[in-house]
Amino acid sequence: MSPPHPELLSINTATVKEQCNLRQAAEGCRRHNIRGISPWRDQLAAMGVKEAVRAIKANGLTVTGLCRGGFFTAKDWKDDNRRAIEEAHELGARCLVLVVGGLPAGSKDLAGARNQVKDGIAAILPEARKAGVPLAIEPLHPMQAAERACINTLEHALDICDALGDGIGVAVDVYHVWWDPKLAEQIARAGKDRVLAYHICDWLVPTRDLLNDRGMMGDGVVDLPKIRGMVERAGYAGFHEAEIFSKLDWWQRDPDEVLSICKDRHARTT
Amino acid sequence: MSPPHPELLSINTATVKEQCNLRQAAEGCRRHNIRGISPWRDQLAAMGVKEAVRAIKANGLTVTGLCRGGFFTAKDWKDDNRRAIEEAHELGARCLVLVVGGLPAGSKDLAGARNQVKDGIAAILPEARKAGVPLAIEPLHPMQAAERACINTLEHALDICDALGDGIGVAVDVYHVWWDPKLAEQIARAGKDRVLAYHICDWLVPTRDLLNDRGMMGDGVVDLPKIRGMVERAGYAGFHEAEIFSKLDWWQRDPDEVLSICKDRHARTT
Repeated sequence: MSPPHPELLSINTATVKEQCNLRQAAEGCRRHNIRGISPWRDQLAAMGVKEAVRAIKANGLTVTGLCRGGFFTAKDWKDDNRRAIEEAHELGARCLVLVVGGLPAGSKDLAGARNQVKDGIAAILPEARKAGVPLAIEPLHPMQAAERACINTLEHALDICDALGDGIGVAVDVYHVWWDPKLAEQIARAGKDRVLAYHICDWLVPTRDLLNDRGMMGDGVVDLPKIRGMVERAGYAGFHEAEIFSKLDWWQRDPDEVLSICKDRHARTT
Repeated sequence: MSPPHPELLSINTATVKEQCNLRQAAEGCRRHNIRGISPWRDQLAAMGVKEAVRAIKANGLTVTGLCRGGFFTAKDWKDDNRRAIEEAHELGARCLVLVVGGLPAGSKDLAGARNQVKDGIAAILPEARKAGVPLAIEPLHPMQAAERACINTLEHALDICDALGDGIGVAVDVYHVWWDPKLAEQIARAGKDRVLAYHICDWLVPTRDLLNDRGMMGDGVVDLPKIRGMVERAGYAGFHEAEIFSKLDWWQRDPDEVLSICKDRHARTT
């Protein structure tokens, strides 16, 4: 594989969320010649959407995704997803990432939760289409099935896409799917129109926490060039979004160090 | 669902491994009217196989499985699996459980590791057949793909079984497979001849460790009666083996308390 085009790196703001607000993250991206950003909605709310749009524009950034819609098993899911669609529209985000939600409190009914999720997506999809905001189902790692997302494989996510039609696809995050024996097959199945985002980081050995111990690209066991090859063969030509939840390491470092290493590792290890 | 037959409970010795050697575990099972046991090979080695056979027989126990063969990506895999087959034969174990091994040190080649595993199983299968020892591939949770087992779904395990023919099946451990959207379908596909073992415990919310924080049946979010229904519909009529790796809780308790609660929870929550 030839190295990735350096302008395809995007930073998911979760990667520096303990150190930077959205404005600081956007300015950091500019300092490190990073051209894409993917903000989280809590930071967007703190800044105000209009101000965020201005700061992102001023720093020459493409919004590669808005994190997140979803949580269809929570009580206020409908209003919350409507607002998320509006915000994604205002930001010109390439997609709204859906972290679909896990089991409702006290429930063991996984099949029921999955049906709720599918119905919820179907309910908001018309508004997303109207707003021109593609919805990206992000299958999360099976270890997060109970708490964060009960869609845990690309195959399952694409079955839902097949059932719901246009305007919906998937976010392929290597952290969540690298282990899947059907990875190549399902990325090919998704194809150009349905791979809406590509997220990178690495799987550490050992992993010390189920949520916040992701690795920097190159520090773990994921064959990143191989997976990039899969999404490229599927026709995906978009950004590579570095999203690293790392309480134990990267959230404790200087954000300029983090961004600089992201830039370097993107070029050398992905 | 009607409650499970109480005589179908088996104890995997890992459940009390910090408190009991194999003889103590076997005697504990007898005290609590538990009829099955599944020992680990380190405890077997410590006691000697002949002595272990005697102790297990003296306590009226069926050996529902021997843990474990596998680790086909390690250096001495062939000799080690031969010894495991012999031991399973001497114990009259219902199956030899295969924890197949993860990535070799320094490797990111998951597809290569999976091929190594398949070739390794194919190499030992004739000896297992000759010894009358069914091999049970245990797909482990995807969070253990790098370190312990690169077979992570029942579908993948059954594809290997399909390719290799008689004498091989799967161990269905709820901890590893409860999240799988294809669980019911794949258990039905496995059928009576290939569900060789059924392991129970629970998935805790939150889970604080990727290896040693399993829950007691009833303490987590797994719908245990539902999954028992799946294996029973497939024709499985064997034991329900409680296997609870729990550094943070159950390994710190009195073993009689652990066995007594296993017995109670098996009856009431599975």
